[in-house]
Amino acid sequence: MPVGTQASVKALTPEDVYSLGAGMVLANTYHLYLRPGIDVIEKLGGLHRFMNWSGPILTDSGGYQVFSLAHLREVSDEGVRFRSHLDGSEHFITPEMATNFQGSLGADIIMAFDECSPCTDDRAAVEQAVERTHRWAERCMESKKRSDQALYGIVQGGGFTDLRLRSAEFLTSLGFDGYAIGGLSIGEPKAITYSMVEQTAASLPADRPRYLMGVGSPEDLIEGVARGIDLFDSALPTRIARNGGIFTKRGRIIVRNADFRDCDGPLEEGCDCYTCRNFSAAYINHLFRCKELLVYRLATIHNLRFVLRLMGEMRESIARGDFQSFRGSFLDAYRPTDEAVRLSQREKGKRWRGDGTRV
Amino acid sequence: MPVGTQASVKALTPEDVYSLGAGMVLANTYHLYLRPGIDVIEKLGGLHRFMNWSGPILTDSGGYQVFSLAHLREVSDEGVRFRSHLDGSEHFITPEMATNFQGSLGADIIMAFDECSPCTDDRAAVEQAVERTHRWAERCMESKKRSDQALYGIVQGGGFTDLRLRSAEFLTSLGFDGYAIGGLSIGEPKAITYSMVEQTAASLPADRPRYLMGVGSPEDLIEGVARGIDLFDSALPTRIARNGGIFTKRGRIIVRNADFRDCDGPLEEGCDCYTCRNFSAAYINHLFRCKELLVYRLATIHNLRFVLRLMGEMRESIARGDFQSFRGSFLDAYRPTDEAVRLSQREKGKRWRGDGTRV
Repeated sequence: MPVGTQASVKALTPEDVYSLGAGMVLANTYHLYLRPGIDVIEKLGGLHRFMNWSGPILTDSGGYQVFSLAHLREVSDEGVRFRSHLDGSEHFITPEMATNFQGSLGADIIMAFDECSPCTDDRAAVEQAVERTHRWAERCMESKKRSDQALYGIVQGGGFTDLRLRSAEFLTSLGFDGYAIGGLSIGEPKAITYSMVEQTAASLPADRPRYLMGVGSPEDLIEGVARGIDLFDSALPTRIARNGGIFTKRGRIIVRNADFRDCDGPLEEGCDCYTCRNFSAAYINHLFRCKELLVYRLATIHNLRFVLRLMGEMRESIARGDFQSFRGSFLDAYRPTDEAVRLSQREKGKRWRGDGTRV
Repeated sequence: MPVGTQASVKALTPEDVYSLGAGMVLANTYHLYLRPGIDVIEKLGGLHRFMNWSGPILTDSGGYQVFSLAHLREVSDEGVRFRSHLDGSEHFITPEMATNFQGSLGADIIMAFDECSPCTDDRAAVEQAVERTHRWAERCMESKKRSDQALYGIVQGGGFTDLRLRSAEFLTSLGFDGYAIGGLSIGEPKAITYSMVEQTAASLPADRPRYLMGVGSPEDLIEGVARGIDLFDSALPTRIARNGGIFTKRGRIIVRNADFRDCDGPLEEGCDCYTCRNFSAAYINHLFRCKELLVYRLATIHNLRFVLRLMGEMRESIARGDFQSFRGSFLDAYRPTDEAVRLSQREKGKRWRGDGTRV
């Protein structure tokens, strides 16, 4: 799912997004609650009409955003008190409110309100958050009013396999329409991500969609599918596009670099996206150097088409029965961004906990 | 002509621009000379191919930009020495070089290299610039090599009618493919603009296109056509769009204002543009408040469609023989931005010279 945090997939019209082959987009309850306000969107006929998107929409509950963006959080069993990252105003959101907000927005898939535990948290903190997430999951399910919305539960558990499995088991017992895995791909080493995904996904029902939140990069999409994931969302493809980072089958290139100044070929040879069919890498390089607005759209189109085409190719390879061969070929050619570089770009100095790594 | 200064009409693809009904776009030799370099664009097959625009292109010579953007100008009869507004690097451009650059870019219409005199300049300075512009016009004509490019001369003369007429007469004697009026709409009162346009246009050949450079606003387009102008360029519609200024038949509205927060209607009732057909003013308001990239495109589309539709309506009214009635109806409904506000937004404290006003 392309990410349209504030009811817009950045730089793209709905027609652009349809043409890329996206089946569903994601929007964020937290952001829309703060601006323009849930009431405004409801009054205007709901989120589909507001952003003129006729395909399905999934709204995140706001749980993750409250934990990653808001200030001065106070978490209690009742809910979360926080200050807006925009203007410092104080707000209090409960699981019931998050569910009702998503009812008013009118998304097709809505998410339970959860407490996100990164893999840096120690066991006691993670266990407390998991238990609270479970109680909140029950309250979200009880407060859901609309029968035309699917509700997904979110598995937490940080870097602790046994807590992940306990969370998956408990949520499954509640009978959600689908299951998400949260609290991953937020800076931890990929070995931990993959291990947690593998063990959690295996314990979720095979007949319900499994959604890995906040992923991601081409290699993570493949590794997620290999471990049984059906659905992903990530701002990564669109965010790095706006910074000049372009996906190709050989890895990420930085099109701002002088190497591309007079490159007459497309960003990626053979790519079927609008950008590659119509413009040279030299033109994209020029637009980035000039900070021309058009380039954010052109680069976004390329990267989203890259990951959406990759998802399509995976679906086809699964249908053909040769996914493992596709996975091997793709990963042989694709050089992921160096993990050391990747981690140093994230929050530094954190110690990874859980059973996958040393403290 | 929508303005694509750096080989891109800001925020729009070529398809967007075609769909607005634009016949021709403008690009700037000065900007493209500095970045990516004329040689780069020539090597990549010329400007049409570089920006993937299959319609006609007009390139400005760089004369105006050297005078308005570059630093430390030294103007001599030979040419202009200046420092780049981007990196301070020193450059020297002659009329011959400006013509050759435009030959390499491959525009359909190219402009003579001129010395621009604003209406704030005194008579001696304007007269000297006019004479130099005339000598340069001859050199541009002599140095032009490509027979597939039309070359337009540029009338200067600041705010002095007799200098304007002398310039028009001299350039006409050289036999250009078309004639531009330069040095207007750069901050002077509209009474001066209109007076200079009226007298200059009347003295230019009726069988050649007359091009009023740097105009403009809806009311100025109408007043220009009323005085015999055929062709305009201006960054105004696109620039104000990016700042939330939206053209409507009643005047300019500021869509960021809270009035539009829950306005379910389009930016302008009855408008046929993509933006108005697909999104509410409330959504545009939301996107502006969030600084979402999509909004620069949506607002640009509306404003360009507004002025291009206006041009089309003027052509139709001329063909029907009722232009004066159309002009009256449009101006009755359209409330231009207040002149005092407009001028105070430009450079303050200048004194207007020429025979239209007091010093």
